Amino acid sequence: MMFKDELTYRELNNRYRNIINASLGEAMMRPDMPETLAQAMKYSLLAGGKRIRPCLTIGVCDIMGGNRKMAIKLACGIEMIHTYSLIHDDLPCMDDDDLRRGQPTNHKVFGEGQAVLAGDGLLTYAFQYMLEAGLSFNNSGYYRAIAEIAKRAGVCGMVAGQSMDLIGETKGIKDESELKYIHQHKTADMLIASILAGAFCGSTTEVQLKCLEAYGGKIGMLFQITDDILDASGDPKLLGKSVHKDDEHNKLTYVTMYGIEKAKKLAESVAAEADRLLFNTFGENCKYLYDTVRYIINRSC
Amino acid sequence: MMFKDELTYRELNNRYRNIINASLGEAMMRPDMPETLAQAMKYSLLAGGKRIRPCLTIGVCDIMGGNRKMAIKLACGIEMIHTYSLIHDDLPCMDDDDLRRGQPTNHKVFGEGQAVLAGDGLLTYAFQYMLEAGLSFNNSGYYRAIAEIAKRAGVCGMVAGQSMDLIGETKGIKDESELKYIHQHKTADMLIASILAGAFCGSTTEVQLKCLEAYGGKIGMLFQITDDILDASGDPKLLGKSVHKDDEHNKLTYVTMYGIEKAKKLAESVAAEADRLLFNTFGENCKYLYDTVRYIINRSC
Repeated sequence: MMFKDELTYRELNNRYRNIINASLGEAMMRPDMPETLAQAMKYSLLAGGKRIRPCLTIGVCDIMGGNRKMAIKLACGIEMIHTYSLIHDDLPCMDDDDLRRGQPTNHKVFGEGQAVLAGDGLLTYAFQYMLEAGLSFNNSGYYRAIAEIAKRAGVCGMVAGQSMDLIGETKGIKDESELKYIHQHKTADMLIASILAGAFCGSTTEVQLKCLEAYGGKIGMLFQITDDILDASGDPKLLGKSVHKDDEHNKLTYVTMYGIEKAKKLAESVAAEADRLLFNTFGENCKYLYDTVRYIINRSC
Repeated sequence: MMFKDELTYRELNNRYRNIINASLGEAMMRPDMPETLAQAMKYSLLAGGKRIRPCLTIGVCDIMGGNRKMAIKLACGIEMIHTYSLIHDDLPCMDDDDLRRGQPTNHKVFGEGQAVLAGDGLLTYAFQYMLEAGLSFNNSGYYRAIAEIAKRAGVCGMVAGQSMDLIGETKGIKDESELKYIHQHKTADMLIASILAGAFCGSTTEVQLKCLEAYGGKIGMLFQITDDILDASGDPKLLGKSVHKDDEHNKLTYVTMYGIEKAKKLAESVAAEADRLLFNTFGENCKYLYDTVRYIINRSC
């Protein structure tokens, strides 16, 4: 990882993504799975995507001078969990989406039953994959990272956000605090987990962890605001997002709440807060994280 | 655990079950979950049941003189995973069952979307719960146990069995080896995981682990044969099993394959093999495991 500061954000991300894609491909070769299950899991896991979460894990590990081998295992586990959540989220009984990243959703190709199992399989394999590697690392920070991932992915995190989102789809979202709860848990929590997982691979202080957690919350919010702006002003397919059959059922978003100009201002101010958080704790020494803020906000502003 | 050898199998199991039920209840109090998600998870997790798997974990831990606190955490994680698998298995896109243990299935009460999430939540929380406890135990055997559970629950284990079973439901099961594959993975793997998890809480030798793994495979098969006998000769509701809407679609079972008398003989011989395995490695010193064999076979023979 010499000279990494000389790489642009895009070059560095490409390197990270290549590592992640190679490791995910290798991870899916290993277990002796039934053919249909393996195909359904690979269909969604190896379908590309920006790999933002696992890139953050390796990026933060590099900033902290941490153990890259541990970070790569955690990064792959996180991407498996992210992928399972998309498969289940697309199911007819959830968002009922036919397309994801321009391709038929998992249940459209493999049927609903196998899609449920492909999701269950990816979620369980994520833990198997991370835990089996842990037996040779034998490192307490590594286990702390897996526990953090489980917490943020689960009933106090992503699954909680999904559950509230599903209720909101039918009953409507009450107010801004409910909207924030959903975004915090559905989107931000796994970003925070990705960042902290990288941090646990190095000798990160508790003060630095607190800062990174708050930073993760900010970029989670920034993601949501810029998503909402792009949704309102352009083609959501450009985002690589799923396309709802019955899109715009009066969904409460940052744009419907504030209007597009005020939403852009809000995005700028959240980005500035993220930068300030970083500067106060890390000074200049986390270029990748500043660049991530720029990357997210440049999508829409 | 003094005097435990003086307790009957039933008394000992009741004690184990009380510990497990109390721990599961406490585990579900802790996380700050959305109300609906919490209700859906508790509905299935705290609905009773024989708790065979977690009882085996604590039982084996006691035999090995292992760390009870570790065994209880693992036992609860295993029961959460078992429960998630029942919720997903009952879904309309899987077995499409309306009743489980005489009560409406999870999706009948909470809707399909929340039932998927209750399953996802229980699976993820199982790992969160086990891993967070692991940070204070800091014990390599404990982590080996969690990795074993993930493996046996996942794409080489229970999920693999479910996937093949689902294919068999539509395409039919080809032959006895396919039937064995499904039972091995759908049923036996989590029993083996439960037994090995208990073993990893003590200083169990590799020879003893091999024996316990083989024993778990035998009682998994014994479960299936006795289930098939009970299904064929009586009321499946007595088993606490789900009741299929379209039961008996020419399913291949040990009874349809061998006839009821030969199936009973097969059960006796599998039970004898389980006993022999135990005796060769543990001698008399694992009463609970001999009793478990008797308990299973007495259900039907």
